[in-house]
Amino acid sequence: METPSLGQATIVSGLHHTVDDGLRIPERIESGSDPGILFELAGPREKIFFDPAKTRAGIVTCGGLCPGLNNVIRSLFLELHYGYGIAEVLGFRGGYAGLDPANGAEPATITPEYIEGIHRQGGTILGTSRGPVDIERAVDNLIRRGVNILFTVGGDGTQRGANALYQEARRRNHPLSVVGVPKTIDNDVGFVARTFGYFSAVEEAVRVLDRAHTEARSTPGGIGLVKLMGRHAGFITAGATIASQDVNFALIPEVPFRLDSFLEALEKRMRQKTHAVIAVAEGAGQELLECGEGAKDASGNLMLKDIGLFLKGQIERHFKEVGVPVVMRYFDPSYLVRSCPANCEDALLCDLFARHAVHAAMAGKTGVVIGFLHERFIHVPIELLAVHVKRLDPDSGWWRSVLAATGQPDCSV
Amino acid sequence: METPSLGQATIVSGLHHTVDDGLRIPERIESGSDPGILFELAGPREKIFFDPAKTRAGIVTCGGLCPGLNNVIRSLFLELHYGYGIAEVLGFRGGYAGLDPANGAEPATITPEYIEGIHRQGGTILGTSRGPVDIERAVDNLIRRGVNILFTVGGDGTQRGANALYQEARRRNHPLSVVGVPKTIDNDVGFVARTFGYFSAVEEAVRVLDRAHTEARSTPGGIGLVKLMGRHAGFITAGATIASQDVNFALIPEVPFRLDSFLEALEKRMRQKTHAVIAVAEGAGQELLECGEGAKDASGNLMLKDIGLFLKGQIERHFKEVGVPVVMRYFDPSYLVRSCPANCEDALLCDLFARHAVHAAMAGKTGVVIGFLHERFIHVPIELLAVHVKRLDPDSGWWRSVLAATGQPDCSV
Amino acid sequence: METPSLGQATIVSGLHHTVDDGLRIPERIESGSDPGILFELAGPREKIFFDPAKTRAGIVTCGGLCPGLNNVIRSLFLELHYGYGIAEVLGFRGGYAGLDPANGAEPATITPEYIEGIHRQGGTILGTSRGPVDIERAVDNLIRRGVNILFTVGGDGTQRGANALYQEARRRNHPLSVVGVPKTIDNDVGFVARTFGYFSAVEEAVRVLDRAHTEARSTPGGIGLVKLMGRHAGFITAGATIASQDVNFALIPEVPFRLDSFLEALEKRMRQKTHAVIAVAEGAGQELLECGEGAKDASGNLMLKDIGLFLKGQIERHFKEVGVPVVMRYFDPSYLVRSCPANCEDALLCDLFARHAVHAAMAGKTGVVIGFLHERFIHVPIELLAVHVKRLDPDSGWWRSVLAATGQPDCSV
Amino acid sequence: METPSLGQATIVSGLHHTVDDGLRIPERIESGSDPGILFELAGPREKIFFDPAKTRAGIVTCGGLCPGLNNVIRSLFLELHYGYGIAEVLGFRGGYAGLDPANGAEPATITPEYIEGIHRQGGTILGTSRGPVDIERAVDNLIRRGVNILFTVGGDGTQRGANALYQEARRRNHPLSVVGVPKTIDNDVGFVARTFGYFSAVEEAVRVLDRAHTEARSTPGGIGLVKLMGRHAGFITAGATIASQDVNFALIPEVPFRLDSFLEALEKRMRQKTHAVIAVAEGAGQELLECGEGAKDASGNLMLKDIGLFLKGQIERHFKEVGVPVVMRYFDPSYLVRSCPANCEDALLCDLFARHAVHAAMAGKTGVVIGFLHERFIHVPIELLAVHVKRLDPDSGWWRSVLAATGQPDCSV
Repeated sequence: METPSLGQATIVSGLHHTVDDGLRIPERIESGSDPGILFELAGPREKIFFDPAKTRAGIVTCGGLCPGLNNVIRSLFLELHYGYGIAEVLGFRGGYAGLDPANGAEPATITPEYIEGIHRQGGTILGTSRGPVDIERAVDNLIRRGVNILFTVGGDGTQRGANALYQEARRRNHPLSVVGVPKTIDNDVGFVARTFGYFSAVEEAVRVLDRAHTEARSTPGGIGLVKLMGRHAGFITAGATIASQDVNFALIPEVPFRLDSFLEALEKRMRQKTHAVIAVAEGAGQELLECGEGAKDASGNLMLKDIGLFLKGQIERHFKEVGVPVVMRYFDPSYLVRSCPANCEDALLCDLFARHAVHAAMAGKTGVVIGFLHERFIHVPIELLAVHVKRLDPDSGWWRSVLAATGQPDCSV
Repeated sequence: METPSLGQATIVSGLHHTVDDGLRIPERIESGSDPGILFELAGPREKIFFDPAKTRAGIVTCGGLCPGLNNVIRSLFLELHYGYGIAEVLGFRGGYAGLDPANGAEPATITPEYIEGIHRQGGTILGTSRGPVDIERAVDNLIRRGVNILFTVGGDGTQRGANALYQEARRRNHPLSVVGVPKTIDNDVGFVARTFGYFSAVEEAVRVLDRAHTEARSTPGGIGLVKLMGRHAGFITAGATIASQDVNFALIPEVPFRLDSFLEALEKRMRQKTHAVIAVAEGAGQELLECGEGAKDASGNLMLKDIGLFLKGQIERHFKEVGVPVVMRYFDPSYLVRSCPANCEDALLCDLFARHAVHAAMAGKTGVVIGFLHERFIHVPIELLAVHVKRLDPDSGWWRSVLAATGQPDCSV
Repeated sequence: METPSLGQATIVSGLHHTVDDGLRIPERIESGSDPGILFELAGPREKIFFDPAKTRAGIVTCGGLCPGLNNVIRSLFLELHYGYGIAEVLGFRGGYAGLDPANGAEPATITPEYIEGIHRQGGTILGTSRGPVDIERAVDNLIRRGVNILFTVGGDGTQRGANALYQEARRRNHPLSVVGVPKTIDNDVGFVARTFGYFSAVEEAVRVLDRAHTEARSTPGGIGLVKLMGRHAGFITAGATIASQDVNFALIPEVPFRLDSFLEALEKRMRQKTHAVIAVAEGAGQELLECGEGAKDASGNLMLKDIGLFLKGQIERHFKEVGVPVVMRYFDPSYLVRSCPANCEDALLCDLFARHAVHAAMAGKTGVVIGFLHERFIHVPIELLAVHVKRLDPDSGWWRSVLAATGQPDCSV
Repeated sequence: METPSLGQATIVSGLHHTVDDGLRIPERIESGSDPGILFELAGPREKIFFDPAKTRAGIVTCGGLCPGLNNVIRSLFLELHYGYGIAEVLGFRGGYAGLDPANGAEPATITPEYIEGIHRQGGTILGTSRGPVDIERAVDNLIRRGVNILFTVGGDGTQRGANALYQEARRRNHPLSVVGVPKTIDNDVGFVARTFGYFSAVEEAVRVLDRAHTEARSTPGGIGLVKLMGRHAGFITAGATIASQDVNFALIPEVPFRLDSFLEALEKRMRQKTHAVIAVAEGAGQELLECGEGAKDASGNLMLKDIGLFLKGQIERHFKEVGVPVVMRYFDPSYLVRSCPANCEDALLCDLFARHAVHAAMAGKTGVVIGFLHERFIHVPIELLAVHVKRLDPDSGWWRSVLAATGQPDCSV
């Protein structure tokens, strides 16, 4: 598949250490296997598409908070400003709503002072929100403001919107490079081995698991139940379980379980050890919850039933029935986890993602997000995100480590 | 008031740096004021009551978790074992229930290996629970096991039980020194300027406030509402508010507020600044909640109505009515806060409290808790705890600092 | 002793929760003892001396870094600006040198924007330096700039300079309130039970001790030797030793030791346990070092001989002589420790010190520092700092806890 | 190249999620490039070589401390004990010296109790040391103790020794599987994209850089100079520089610099900004230091000249010459950095490395280390470590980010 671009880059960039535009990385690398999709390697190019002195860029952050958003904003600006000498960088406020002038808030003009020290803070200095973008009004606005480059920091939905923006701009003959920086604290975007914010979230989750473990073992019959993020993928739950080594049951969306098997295994554990720690991803066990209408949030994500509260209730009911006294401690730390500052590794990752996004945009790439595959940054056409969603493989070393660290039995039968 | 004791201490302790048994510290020190109660200064005595080689001691931890419990257990043991060469130290398990043999769990024999490294962990290695002690069965058990010294680590209720244990033992002519280490994460026990665990809790609370602030300011209309511990006293909320400097409204039990005044002030803030952070102590505003039957928990504490959820609902209702969109983020971090390990200052405080408790017991004091007044450790007869409860003084510098740091208006009118 | 002041305060402050100007706190409180000095209680007064609208204040930070300097600057400004509505607050740059216009740097005009977020950073936004102030030129400058209030944040030397500034201003009939905020990471200023920054330093020191312990016990023959701050007082070393519980030998200035006794005790430990951790205050054992000329640093402090490197050499020499192989790991973390941000408790303490300093200055007090005695903030005439230096009492509970936590023998004989 | 093994694995493992023994991962993956070496994929096999019930394993940790050693020890044991039911696991003490019975210390028999909680501590519970192993005596010892599996946790030198052990055992017809877990805090081992401990070290290094920055900017003329680990590779310095964003000059072994160019650039910075932060890898600029005899440490590593102290001296000399006053703050935090506990990501990585090492050994692989290439765990024949050393590529995105984050000029000319 061709990487979408605005056309031939013709301006000599003058950069050092440039990356050849023809280098490709295969999707699959096991010897003998079909290589699958070939991705363009990201990085600065010898020739660029936009004349920096005449180019205005914009940045928008969308969806839920994720550690590292401010780091990405800051490094995007630094690379645009110092690396390419771009004329002006606008920060659209409050997510996609900020692209629509009807919503009021004027974009910020980003300066070195504006971004000073923001990488040490969680959240996003530009503000964020859920919800789609009005494509026509947004493109009107971008054209009127003379914005030729737009960085969209967000998840699947955000990037689908980004793609629509670039298509609409093309329809109107406005050269608009839209480059996405994939943001998913759940780490579940395809062709991105590790998204920024994910490991900061794991670190925070481990802190919570440690506290849940303390509560559980300090009270006879103590059960610490921790609901972690992970709508469709159990990476946070699995990563935190392996790092913590204190979890007895880890439940994730990719590995269905039977409620009776789980309760039986938990009861066995409680009778033997008198305390237990359970980590459950918010998307786990959805099939156990009674289906109602599939409500959706402002971003269009299916609203999940609350597996945490469901399990809490079922565990309490079960142990009451079997006459084993338990003391439940329920933790739902999502807001605490997602609003933490980026840890060191995510700080580094954010810087690399952001600078590669700038290189892509300056070279005229559009309709792409920056991916990270086999330890290389790549250009991923947004359309491919729909064909490959990333899930935790129950046959992988990670899941083997989860099973070994928890000692949990197979609860699927 | 006399400090209760088992009688004349006659055994030469051989200790250095002993404290004269006659030293007294007045309750009040402002020049010209009535000194009030005179408290015995705590510390090692030249003569002790118990022969270490023939004495067995016990430790019990009761009530909710509090940072530093393991530090106290560890330093009690170290001082008994290495400082006095006491014969044996038993750890009763699972709170007061563990004093009653009917509950099954045998006490642990504490050894240097048993306590290795426990001071770096939250919770209590002995386990804890709420609920009263069966005085008769407990004293039977203590007599049968030959326990002459019992350390009770817990709050008001625990210490009242401790007093009853000592009275019952006296009635039976069993010399039992019961010395309490006051445990209240809320910092609300009389004659104890600062209880262990309190500042660790403040530190954790500040982390949560910081996250709530991040959530609030990253979303247009963001309101971060954090419910903190403090059933009857606002010390955690006040301390965390001053240390954080990011809170806009702090609500505590000692300063009543009118709901309409508060909502009006919050609305004004939201219209001007578009985000806000609110810290509310769990015991604040109880008068606003409809009264039902005064339910009590297993420790006999009055069950509070949930001011956090009440405020959340009222705020959402109010802003819906006035047509100002807000995004609520509600945090209830109590379990996370109370299960953290002791920070450095609490680690130090725990060690001092514990060793002073051992000195008191060895000298034959009984029916006392270790207090900390005007920067000195003292012996506080348990009976005095009932006459003086500690509350945050709204005329104090702390509350002035809260008002200055938040800029909140007077919401009591 | 009278608290120095500029005269009768006559302007109604309009403040709530004011403190009566006549309240006094005695130096000593043990019942029966001579109360000693009576100190004025600090806090807002019903009547103030300066008309806020016509008053300009200045802030200067002097000497070595200490956690909390930025917090103090920030809270001084906030109380002056929002609490009293003072006209202008200047920040003199680079310590006392900044009071002298000959040194170039113009003072900063402090604004809410200037101080945003600085309390989360170590160091001082105003800069600092060692060295005395040229009294005449400084007072010239203060008069020319119309500064009537000056806050001096610094140690003994700084406060002696502060006193001279106020005396010189009085001589020239310029009403100048000079109020000091005592800054000593070593916690060794008289009439201040706890100085800001001290416990942040202890916390950092404990981290280093923990690492030294890890190094020592992971290597056969490992000795971790950590030099901590404390020129004349061992509070950091003692506090960190008790909090850490991993130190085997703590050496402080207040408790002299014989080198041969120490080496003998260390050898005994190494033969039994094969590893050891030593914490030594920089001012310990000075009598062991060969005396040269008493060199002084720019602040006039006597330059200490390096006890850390001396001990390192002596230990290596000794164990070579006795043929016991050891692996030395030497840590000198002073810069790391003093540049950390204030922890929560210091953040709170800084706020209270700063606001009490503003209240004192507005009431016309001068030539005083804010003290903290028996848990109350007080006004301490600067001249008294010379009569009482604070040292760790070897008969106190703290030193008893150090001896118990280390198990170290008496090395003074 | 064939992966060395002891022969055909014939025992049915009964494991789930096994990995096919024939899967290969190429060294190079860019499309069109020569794939280079093909590596065996690591993971559990359908058939294993050793009968667990009759097999005894040993673990040894060698060389300098590195975050995560205890995690590796613990997960090796857990997988051997619970995953395979191996009969006994011995922990050889104090590095390779512990393989030689002449050195005294008996190996520990590792049990679940022995390893409880060790993963939260830095260092190694088994002890470590530098220095080679006496191959003959070690193999004698392993044979006598009936050890058929040995895990060697260490760097290049350790793994070369490991290879010699396996060769000697083969010569004596003793089936010995030697599997290495590569340990290099510098992250400089070939075919291992990321070694455990590296990112924990970066996190600690960033803390130090933050403090150095605080010191530098709080003092007029302040220069913070931080020497970081990295004998031959600048990964720690580069990673910490990008994560910190506060460094002005980063110097690494892979990018030579001229002293005069560097000093000139530093002078320019000091004249403009009055403060600077410099991060220098210990192996940087070795060519600037006068060569003496190439001394070696006990592990046979070439002793480096101290570039940190050299630069400190040269900077002080230079600024004295040009008459610009500077205040130097020198930080050498190596012991602090390497003794920290593993952070969450390293905790996870350690678990995965350790369990893959156990799978390799049980399948009869020998003379291999576990590698991590293109996000997959692989078997790397030890002999290949000599042919490929890992260095930071100055043309890579990492170095581009370093240059962008520091703004440093090219100092090589």
